[in-house]
Order: sequence, then structure tokens, then C-alpha cells
Amino acid sequence: MSSPVSSHAGVRSSTSGVSDERSGQAKLRPGPEAIGAGKFEVVTDRAGGGRVSAAERWLARQMLRSMGSPPVRMVLCSGEEIPASGPPPVARMLIRDRATLRKLILNPNLSFGDGYSDGRIDVEGDLTEFLEAVYRARSAARKRVGLLRKIISRWWQRTRSNTLRGSRANIHHHYDIGNDFYKLWLDEQLVYTCAYFPTPQVTLEQAQVAKMDHVCRKLWLRPGETVVEAGCGWGALGLHMAKHYGVKVKAFNISHEQIAYARQRAKQEGLNSRAEFIEDDYRAISGRFDVFVSVGMLEHVGTDHYHELGKVVDGCLGPCGRGMIHSIGQNEPGELSPWLTRRIFPGAYPPSLREMTNVLEPWGFSVLDVENLRLHYAETLRHWLRRFEAAAGAVAEMFDGRFVRTWRLYLAGSVAAFASGGLQLFQTVFARPGVNEIPWTRARLYEGSGGPGG
Amino acid sequence: MSSPVSSHAGVRSSTSGVSDERSGQAKLRPGPEAIGAGKFEVVTDRAGGGRVSAAERWLARQMLRSMGSPPVRMVLCSGEEIPASGPPPVARMLIRDRATLRKLILNPNLSFGDGYSDGRIDVEGDLTEFLEAVYRARSAARKRVGLLRKIISRWWQRTRSNTLRGSRANIHHHYDIGNDFYKLWLDEQLVYTCAYFPTPQVTLEQAQVAKMDHVCRKLWLRPGETVVEAGCGWGALGLHMAKHYGVKVKAFNISHEQIAYARQRAKQEGLNSRAEFIEDDYRAISGRFDVFVSVGMLEHVGTDHYHELGKVVDGCLGPCGRGMIHSIGQNEPGELSPWLTRRIFPGAYPPSLREMTNVLEPWGFSVLDVENLRLHYAETLRHWLRRFEAAAGAVAEMFDGRFVRTWRLYLAGSVAAFASGGLQLFQTVFARPGVNEIPWTRARLYEGSGGPGG
Repeated sequence: MSSPVSSHAGVRSSTSGVSDERSGQAKLRPGPEAIGAGKFEVVTDRAGGGRVSAAERWLARQMLRSMGSPPVRMVLCSGEEIPASGPPPVARMLIRDRATLRKLILNPNLSFGDGYSDGRIDVEGDLTEFLEAVYRARSAARKRVGLLRKIISRWWQRTRSNTLRGSRANIHHHYDIGNDFYKLWLDEQLVYTCAYFPTPQVTLEQAQVAKMDHVCRKLWLRPGETVVEAGCGWGALGLHMAKHYGVKVKAFNISHEQIAYARQRAKQEGLNSRAEFIEDDYRAISGRFDVFVSVGMLEHVGTDHYHELGKVVDGCLGPCGRGMIHSIGQNEPGELSPWLTRRIFPGAYPPSLREMTNVLEPWGFSVLDVENLRLHYAETLRHWLRRFEAAAGAVAEMFDGRFVRTWRLYLAGSVAAFASGGLQLFQTVFARPGVNEIPWTRARLYEGSGGPGG
Repeated sequence: MSSPVSSHAGVRSSTSGVSDERSGQAKLRPGPEAIGAGKFEVVTDRAGGGRVSAAERWLARQMLRSMGSPPVRMVLCSGEEIPASGPPPVARMLIRDRATLRKLILNPNLSFGDGYSDGRIDVEGDLTEFLEAVYRARSAARKRVGLLRKIISRWWQRTRSNTLRGSRANIHHHYDIGNDFYKLWLDEQLVYTCAYFPTPQVTLEQAQVAKMDHVCRKLWLRPGETVVEAGCGWGALGLHMAKHYGVKVKAFNISHEQIAYARQRAKQEGLNSRAEFIEDDYRAISGRFDVFVSVGMLEHVGTDHYHELGKVVDGCLGPCGRGMIHSIGQNEPGELSPWLTRRIFPGAYPPSLREMTNVLEPWGFSVLDVENLRLHYAETLRHWLRRFEAAAGAVAEMFDGRFVRTWRLYLAGSVAAFASGGLQLFQTVFARPGVNEIPWTRARLYEGSGGPGG
């Protein structure tokens, strides 16, 4: 049920535009090439925003330096350029007015994204490449301020609230904005988590099916077994398991729209009796199952609740139980950009592997397999971004141009975050300790073409 | 360079025997069936050790209860039996004299092993099965005293010292007792770490070669690359890499005997220029390498030194560096038996996965793959135990009967610890963050027969 959460703050390629200072909102309208190519022309007004003080210029330079001097050029509203140091610049970042420049200097992490959404900041060049360059530079710079970063991160993690009520509000914010919207750019089964590409050449549809099979094979599902799924999105995995692996699935999700969709699909496909979809929190799981699976929910749980989640897993698994947690992660604990957690994913936090072990270790589970699929998520996101761009006109009609720019930034930033190594994707398989009926090797995961394969 | 470290305290099958109370040492001599079958008759003297008080009987019962009431019968020196509760007993544990019974009650973890070594405790039935039953029962019982166990474990971990000097003494204790001894029961290449069995039917020799290939494939070694190995045992892996994967290896080990052996092999096989063996601590590693590998050393490092080890890894890897740490582990932090850490492996501690991340996470490494090979280590140890039993006569001549019983208990206990899920074997592959030249999937690990395969 989740999707990428990255620490990005960035900007999309555009050719021309003038900001509308009076309303504080940029007006966006599809340019002639917008439909199909998914590009938008930003209509802005340069008047009044042209002058920049020496102090502002100096501060802008310092800001770039503190970000590790990424290979990008910053073009101020005065027309002056702050050149990149080091390798040749990959893109130009355009700051349309002085107020935006000031906000950017004061709070770059939030103002970058907001400025881009409003069309007051733009990028000439490839948005994803631009963002990846920024992340890579910042990641190198961060190494130098390790301790401070850790303190801020700890503080920041305390501010997220994923209580029962908080979770509902957070999930509603992102996942209940309309199935029709997601249908425009996800695969046909609406799988909104990292796909698995046996080779980079397969289609997104094939890669999502391959991911579901990869998960099922890792869990060595056997016909007649029972599975509980925590956070089931639009139900694709639960239905796939019930249909192709002969198991009985009980799936939980607090997104109203997703559950309604999953139930309808189950009914249509005659899987009602084998795939049950329940609109409730993972904390409401009860009963005993052979398998626990959670794909893309842990990012929304919050580290404060890992013990609680572990207790749920421990409580619902039988003596030979096993499970998998599939989640976005990080190499080391660290905050996400406030833009992302305020505008896109409230309450989200991708754990480090160490943090992830806090779900399982207190309950004595045995970790059998961890696979990092980072590059697969970058590839998945590239597919989503391409489809999103192709549908940008329809999205603009459904919402507005600002929404298009916001989501473009979120998707491009997520590609960049996974491609630059800022985010990881961990699939962790575990089992009750001391159970010896576990696969002897992982070879069977790679037999055949990735279909149901025992 | 390591080998299994388990939390066992147990006893080996024997048919008859009387303890020698006067000397406090049992006399051991090979019975008629000893050579070949590897069994020993325990010569003990029952006189003077026969009576047991009601209090001692009650305490013995309580001891069994505190161990989770394993399905074993305890036969006291008086001839009385304390029956097992629950499932039918898998074996009988014989306590030869009253002094041993008292020691066992006071300090079962240490006295069990010492009593067995001395022949004052014995087991009728399969030693490994007996130990596995004890571990499984104790593991279930431990769940009830989680917190206390954690506190004791923390304290206990503080008592181990793996400073530069401490490490040398600890390693010398186990690994420098004579290459001729290890040749009696290890594979022909003297690989004293968990093997990898593509199928359980392959020989130990094949499984050790398959393990080395598994490691090399996981590290996607390319000809011309440089590898640094921390803790190289008798050099088999380093030589395998140099010979079959065209890399240049620099291998460190503080065991004098092992390094001398590895150097001689390198000379004999004409690999001198590509495999260098250095008698020094991992903390002495300097220079830059493409790959860091450590198989079976982390168990001897001690959690207090993980940061130091991580610093070494960070310092010696180039910008595209990657590595693997292969180590015995646990599902949750916990102390080993004092018998094991005093008599067999001073300074040893198998970390939980969470503890293991402390080596890599502070340096921002990206974990790509974790595989748990627990059942492969149980199988490896069964091979070792069988070969050890077959060579028990020769071992007794080389050392004495007490040594044979001590090592038998250590090997059987290690089989039991891995088979019962008390110990794990983690292979953790990692790389510098943001490096995208990493394998796309793990499929190539399972192509072909396991030989060098790019």
C-alpha cells in the first residue's frame, strides 16, 4: 500500500514561464506539447521580481555549498547565474522571483518543493538527473555532519504520529485521492510498490506479476495454507496468492477506497471465499495464520510502533509460521524532506535495516533472507513517471496544474533517491526459530520464468 | 578462521563406567569398539558416590524444570531416576557421583561440560539428539525470563576482552593446537567454517568448494581486482579466489600455525604473487581494495569492537568497494555457555543481525543481501562430527581421552545448536552506497553447478 518516500526537493524541466507574484500561485496551463509528452509551460510574471541583493546572492551561493556543491547552475530572477563548481552542470534551476529565493535560502528543504509545485522554481534539463545530482552531492556532504544529522533525525522522528487515528488520517491523505487517478499511471492491477524485473527489459505489468511471484516463492506458499496481509493496497497480491497459490488470504488496509476496489475485484474474479478484505488497521489483526506478509506498509508504521507490529506478527503466527516484510529503507537512520512528509506522505519513515530488526528481534524470529531491490524501485518509478507524464493532461483536468507539478516532483525525486542510493528497498523473510522445514537454498526462486513455482 | 560456538552443555553416549572420586578425574581409555566407531568406555568408580539426599533429589528436579523440562531422564549416582515429563525421553543422562551432582545443581552451564569431559557425566543415547532436546526445551523456557536474560547477557558481554593482545591469546587457544589435529576431521583444504550444500547429498569437500564459489559469486569478483580478507583460516578461500577468479588477495590472520600453512600452500601452488598471507590483526589492514571479505571472524571480534572493524572496512574500500561478512549469529542477543567460552572459544560471541548492522550502518554501507545458512552449518558439523568420531583413537593418542570427550561435546553441541535454531549463520553482502554497478538480481548465484560463474 505504500510508494516511494524520498528525501527530495526539486524541480521539473520547463522552457519558459513567468511567476504570478500577486496571487502567490503560479498559473499552469498545458503548453502545445503538454498532452502526450506531459510537459507544462509555466506562466509567470517576471516584473517586480528581478532585483537581487549582494547578500542574497552570497547566501544562495552558501546554500549550494552546504548542499555539497551539486553540478547545477542556479539562475536568479535577476538573470544572474551562480555557476556550478566541479563537473559540468547537468541542469539549470530557475528561481522566478525574489520572495522565492528568500524562502529557498531560509528553508530549502520545504521551499524547493513548494516553489516547484507553484511554478516559482523551475528546472531546465532532465528533472530526474538534476535531482539525482543534488542528492549525490548532499549525501557526500552529509558524511561531514554525521552527529548533528543524527540528533536532528531523532528529534524529527518523534514528531510523527501513527496512532490508530493518526494513521487513518495519514493514509487517507495519500491513498484515498481517487482510484481513477492511480489507474492513469500504475499497472493494470494497481500495484503501488516496487516491482521486480527479472531483466530490465520486461514491461511494468510483467514486473509487477514477477514481484508477486517472487514474494510468494520466498514465502514457499503451499495450497491450503492461510495468509494474513497487513496493508494490502488495491488487493493485487492477496488475489494473486489466492488465485495462483491456493492459499486463503485475509488482508487488512485502512484506505477505504482501496478496500472497496479490492472487494469488487475479488467478487468479479470469484475469489470471495479465498480472499477477504478488511477495512481495518494492522493492530486489529486477530486469529492464527501460517504466513504473515506486508508489502509497503512498514514505511507508514513509524519506529515507535515497531514493537507493537512485532507483537501482532508474533500473536498471529502459528508455531511453524513465517513471513515477509517488504519496505522502503535507508542505509542509516535519517529524516525525510519535510516537503515530502508534509505534502505527500504524512507520517512516513523508511527505516534502516537496524531499525527494521526491531520488529522481529524482540520476538525471537529468525531472519532467513534479506534482499535489497533498490535499483528495481528506481526502474519501477521510471515506468510510473513516464506513464504519469503521458497522462499529465488528464491529471491536470482531474485536479490542476499545481497537482501535476507536485506529483511530478515526487515521482522524479523518488527515481533519483533510489538511483542515487539514498533509499533502499528491503525484502526481509523470517520464520519462527527452530523450524527446520525451511527451503534448503534459494535456488528455487530462480527456476523457470518466475511464475508460480513452489 | 572460526568455527561453531554454541550454548551447549551436554554429554556423550556411553554404556558403562564408574567415576574415580579420589582423583576427581575420570580415566578414559578406548573400549574395544573405540577405534573406528569413535566410542569410549568411561572407567569410573561408584564406591562412595552412591547416596543422594532428598534435598539434592529435589534440587535436581528443579534444575530440569528450570531448563524447560527437556525429554531426558536423569540417572543419579544412587541409581534413582528422575523421569522426564512430557514426550518420551530421547536419552538418559548419567551422573556418576554426588560431588558432580552438587556442582551441576550449583552451576549447570559450566559443570555439565566439565563433568562430561571428565567422564563424570555421561549420556545413554544419541548425544546430539540429547543436546538438541535440551536446547529446544531451554529456548522455550527462556521466553519466560526474557528481561533477566537480557540483563545477564549485557553484563556477560562486558567480560569478554578482544583487545589486540586479548585476541591473540584467544585465537591461539583454539586455532594453534596443531594443524595435524584439524587435518584428521576437516575437509582436505582445512575449511573450518560453514559449508554450502547445493543439495544435502554432496560431500563435505564439494560443499566447501561450493561455499567458496558462493562467496565469490556473491561478491561478483572480476579478474584483476584486489581483495582483502580479514581472518583467513588456513587460506583456502584466499587461494581459491586467486586461482579461480583472477583476483589479488591480501589475507590477515593472527593464528601463527594457520598463516604458516597458508603460505606454504601458496608457494606450492605457485600463487605466491597473487595471495599474500599476513600474520596480523584485522586492525592492521591498510591500503585500498575493491573487495573486503571476512568468513568466520566476526564471532571473535566482540561487539565492543564492531565500530573499529567498520572503520577498518570503510578505510580500506575504494569508492566502488563491496564486501561480505560471514558469521555465526543469533536471533536475539544472548550469552553463550560459560563452558564454551572458557574451555573452547575464549572471547567468542555470535551477534544478532541487529548487532551485526553496527559494523556497517555507522559508515553508511548499503546492505544488499543477507542469507541465513543455519541448516548448512548443522550439516557441516554432522560431517565434522562423523569424521572426528572416526579419528577419535588418533586424537586420543595425540592428546588424551578427556580432550576427545571435550571436543565431541563441542561438536555435537554445535550440531544441536544450529539444528535447534539457537544459532544462525549470516552471510551479509554490502557495498558503498549509491554504486549502481551491482548485480541486477541474484539469479546468477544459482546458474550452473556452482563453479566460477561471474
